[in-house]
Amino acid sequence: MNIGILGTGMVARTFAQTLLAKGHILKLGTRNVADTLAKPGNTNTGLLSFADWLQSQPGIELGTFAEAAAFGELLINVTSGGACMVALEAAGEANLGQKVLLDVANPLDFSNGMPPTLSIVNDDSLGEAIQRRFPNVNVVKTLNTMTAAIMVNPTAVSGMHNVFVSGNGTAAKATASAFLTEQFGWPATSIIDLGDITTARGSEQLLPIWIRLWGALQTPMFNFAIVR
Amino acid sequence: MNIGILGTGMVARTFAQTLLAKGHILKLGTRNVADTLAKPGNTNTGLLSFADWLQSQPGIELGTFAEAAAFGELLINVTSGGACMVALEAAGEANLGQKVLLDVANPLDFSNGMPPTLSIVNDDSLGEAIQRRFPNVNVVKTLNTMTAAIMVNPTAVSGMHNVFVSGNGTAAKATASAFLTEQFGWPATSIIDLGDITTARGSEQLLPIWIRLWGALQTPMFNFAIVR
Repeated sequence: MNIGILGTGMVARTFAQTLLAKGHILKLGTRNVADTLAKPGNTNTGLLSFADWLQSQPGIELGTFAEAAAFGELLINVTSGGACMVALEAAGEANLGQKVLLDVANPLDFSNGMPPTLSIVNDDSLGEAIQRRFPNVNVVKTLNTMTAAIMVNPTAVSGMHNVFVSGNGTAAKATASAFLTEQFGWPATSIIDLGDITTARGSEQLLPIWIRLWGALQTPMFNFAIVR
Repeated sequence: MNIGILGTGMVARTFAQTLLAKGHILKLGTRNVADTLAKPGNTNTGLLSFADWLQSQPGIELGTFAEAAAFGELLINVTSGGACMVALEAAGEANLGQKVLLDVANPLDFSNGMPPTLSIVNDDSLGEAIQRRFPNVNVVKTLNTMTAAIMVNPTAVSGMHNVFVSGNGTAAKATASAFLTEQFGWPATSIIDLGDITTARGSEQLLPIWIRLWGALQTPMFNFAIVR
């Protein structure tokens, strides 16, 4: 399948490598291709420069947000929360069409330091804001409640744990859920449908405790399980 | 131990009955004793009138917020989020003293219907607001992320699941954690110390997804587990 990924950071790369290995054709979208290719790596986090990473992944292409959106039959939004709406505007309404958009972004605001707050919260969510602005897109909020290594490999955490989906379209949520199962190995029984896109408020507001748990547990390799 | 419970609703009663059975002496606090005793039950939820319930629980006493706060060596705040600060003002700074206050309340705002929003959120929390207003009180936010039947009986949910504690005082959190273990049976390994009282932002912001999960699962008998 042709898949368009909006974003070029660590999460985007994790998705791209995993989906490339599954035989898909990937195009990553960015604001400015030349700038992204010129950007150095991050020696603190060990993140390769995008150009170095791209060279190690033959078959993955880089384009503008518009090109990635036009290319993908299914789209994944992994832009940073603050850049998200600008990226989607650049992707363009026509290119986004009525496609299923897996919205993995969180509206984290680091402008006041750590821990971040949420720039959209409580009576609204980033998922809803995207759906309002692009009413034809089939937005499905999902995977935003865990670290990238677990998103694409749920066996990295032991035992039963969960991933949430929120969206207005039943068919789009079924497509998204099947994608999670087939591409990443999420058991169907681990996928919890929270309801319409307004339930993205719930999953996005998991981030504040997620960040504190990262500190308390000294690792991001954990996930939420809903046990009964 | 003499325990003061601020509140008279379902959660207050669940705590009181459980702690009475463990041999403690309980005083529940309310705004106006006569009003609380005159209030009818709720036929929709099956909640007994307070007077009927009290009659079935010999040994539990009802008093004002101030009387309950003065009585308890340890205090439990289970007032509704909107009434919380008023209740604590009525309890009085002198009566609250430097006691450990288990803050189980959530700042839920039902004024715009269901689902509720949070009246304090994102860069603040109810736990922090209480701690700011009563700097001498040893506020420990805990147990606010599950239904009352699970708070006092973690075996009601199968397998490992978690309860969070947030607070500024190490000794107060140790007291609270020991209380959870000894009175309710929470395994020490299931108690996660999130950090100082600002981490109450994290546990209070679990409520939006908790409420959606209640809808999706059609039962409140579930809890969050953090799995690795």
